[in-house]
Amino acid sequence: MMQNEVTDNVAEFVNRIDFAKGNGLVPVIVQDEKTKDIMMLAYANKEALTLSLTTGIAHYWTRSRAMIWKKGETSGNTQLIKRIDTDCDQDTLLYVVDQNGVACHTGDWSCFPSVTKEKSQRKY
Amino acid sequence: MMQNEVTDNVAEFVNRIDFAKGNGLVPVIVQDEKTKDIMMLAYANKEALTLSLTTGIAHYWTRSRAMIWKKGETSGNTQLIKRIDTDCDQDTLLYVVDQNGVACHTGDWSCFPSVTKEKSQRKY
Repeated sequence: MMQNEVTDNVAEFVNRIDFAKGNGLVPVIVQDEKTKDIMMLAYANKEALTLSLTTGIAHYWTRSRAMIWKKGETSGNTQLIKRIDTDCDQDTLLYVVDQNGVACHTGDWSCFPSVTKEKSQRKY
Repeated sequence: MMQNEVTDNVAEFVNRIDFAKGNGLVPVIVQDEKTKDIMMLAYANKEALTLSLTTGIAHYWTRSRAMIWKKGETSGNTQLIKRIDTDCDQDTLLYVVDQNGVACHTGDWSCFPSVTKEKSQRKY
């Protein structure tokens, strides 16, 4: 019963999202919960969003490899989903995550150099 | 002399951005500097980015109205640019701003309901 309610809520949320505008993809802003740092921008299709909601681990659609991408599957730098939200016109997602390790493929904390730099200057 | 150096830096930064991938547009993550709240996701073309860099006020390209959009021009809810950064593959922008008033056209602080809700529960 509980499972069905969860599944219904997932479907309801996924169906609200406007995937049509971006040809099946929506941009996902990824923010670290503890530091509120912006980690990266990625893209999700319906399947990636559903997997993120049901597994609690961030999934995306990689445009360069054209496939579902469970972030950190090989590197171990997974992102635990703390919250998923959509914006006022339902065409963007926000994943608030607990970032394991680093987010960027370069080995940097964030895909944005100024965010990585700020973090290196903080005490926490 | 100073002006030329600034202009050169603007042109250098703008030319680094990969506008081609998104048919002339890149997504812009907008974050409030003080609270680190995510305000919205918008889009910029080369002209909007250049205007943001040279005027210090956030400009975007509105896809629905298909024009340059100086945010807050009518509402007064302008965004003062504190920092602009791009990510590791130069196809996304981050505007860190000082948000005047609210960001969302609904009158909410953020275009993401969970961010607006969080703010209402904070002391600052």
